[in-house]
Amino acid sequence: MKKILGILGGMGPAATADLFTKIVSMTEAGSDAEHIRVIIDSNSAIPDRTAAILSGGKDPVPEMLSALRNLEKCGAGCVILPCNTAHFFLPRLRTETSIPILNMLESAAKRCAELYPGKKAAVLATVGTLSTGLYDAALEGAGVPFLLPDDSERETLMYLIYDVVKASGPIAPERERWRGLLDGLRARGAEVFILGCTELPILSEALDVPGPFIDPTAELARAAIEFCGYKVREQKR
Amino acid sequence: MKKILGILGGMGPAATADLFTKIVSMTEAGSDAEHIRVIIDSNSAIPDRTAAILSGGKDPVPEMLSALRNLEKCGAGCVILPCNTAHFFLPRLRTETSIPILNMLESAAKRCAELYPGKKAAVLATVGTLSTGLYDAALEGAGVPFLLPDDSERETLMYLIYDVVKASGPIAPERERWRGLLDGLRARGAEVFILGCTELPILSEALDVPGPFIDPTAELARAAIEFCGYKVREQKR
Repeated sequence: MKKILGILGGMGPAATADLFTKIVSMTEAGSDAEHIRVIIDSNSAIPDRTAAILSGGKDPVPEMLSALRNLEKCGAGCVILPCNTAHFFLPRLRTETSIPILNMLESAAKRCAELYPGKKAAVLATVGTLSTGLYDAALEGAGVPFLLPDDSERETLMYLIYDVVKASGPIAPERERWRGLLDGLRARGAEVFILGCTELPILSEALDVPGPFIDPTAELARAAIEFCGYKVREQKR
Repeated sequence: MKKILGILGGMGPAATADLFTKIVSMTEAGSDAEHIRVIIDSNSAIPDRTAAILSGGKDPVPEMLSALRNLEKCGAGCVILPCNTAHFFLPRLRTETSIPILNMLESAAKRCAELYPGKKAAVLATVGTLSTGLYDAALEGAGVPFLLPDDSERETLMYLIYDVVKASGPIAPERERWRGLLDGLRARGAEVFILGCTELPILSEALDVPGPFIDPTAELARAAIEFCGYKVREQKR
């Protein structure tokens, strides 16, 4: 039974477009009609998740629920959120709906364990996501050893996420900063990098510095395609 | 007054993702919150438009209306369709809704007149779109001289649109075929190319053969951003 896929998006809009693009390109389909029906609410009015978790910023749940209600009205049979930090609010969202909401962090952790068994993963994420310990739990659950960014690495990550990608700034000049961040983590033992903020795959694909990387957006796309009753194409266009 | 933008999509899904990506990257925004709220129904069940126009294929309007109703339920204040051929059905859709639906072909023709005044434009489109004369009318209305593909060029276009882009096939091997098509049209007097099927900007951007081109998807994005009360950023990321 094929399901309609709902994307509770806008966190941020570029990450939402990235997820949708990955869903389309990763679906095994030989014509328009063989694709998933996808409903998206890219609700840019959802307040910043990191600010809500760490510094008393506005609660994002009411605007997330506004989008969730739209997805329900349109018949979504499954919902996904292209924002790692937003997964902190998943338990509250789940009490509000009977539609299954997939977990991006668990999909990413599972894939990391499959592709890089025993390798140490560095979690690249916002300070909001890191403070929640959500990735720690997902990676421990999947048996993946990991390390977290230190204060200076967190500062670099927040700059790249907020002042470059979310600010629609030019990405190309950030190559050396990005490479430096990865090299520093590698020197501390990292063997694979989890792009644990949905702005980071956008940055990483634009800069093309070697990883290896786990892209949670692509893993969420894969999980959603399968959950909705479609097949993932392994070969990239 | 800011409007919510509705995208009546799925025709095809890759073109819908391309339009959404262009809307996000072309909006002047320094943070998530400064973007347009966008609702998308990528309804892959909409029957093929060219088949409906030319060969008695299933009427696409009922499934287009199903998507339109979803966009209405979610509060869209403006609707756009990322499919040139689907514009044939615009008069029928407009009688069914009070929400303004923008016209991609008129936006493209207007832009062509502005950027390339007096230059002869070649219309690259499906045989469905070409048979309707919709581009002829839009270009005449904007005072743009134009030429249409001949039978063999139409065959090449249908192959590239249906057997490559819509079929999720590899694009890179098509470079010489694409270049040959453009060179042939140039030899017949074309000075600018209108990528008048929403699969063609995807092909053209992947192959990077020189134009110049008018990208109706980008022009529709520009028109929608302005209609919804936002500003277009001129500088690309």
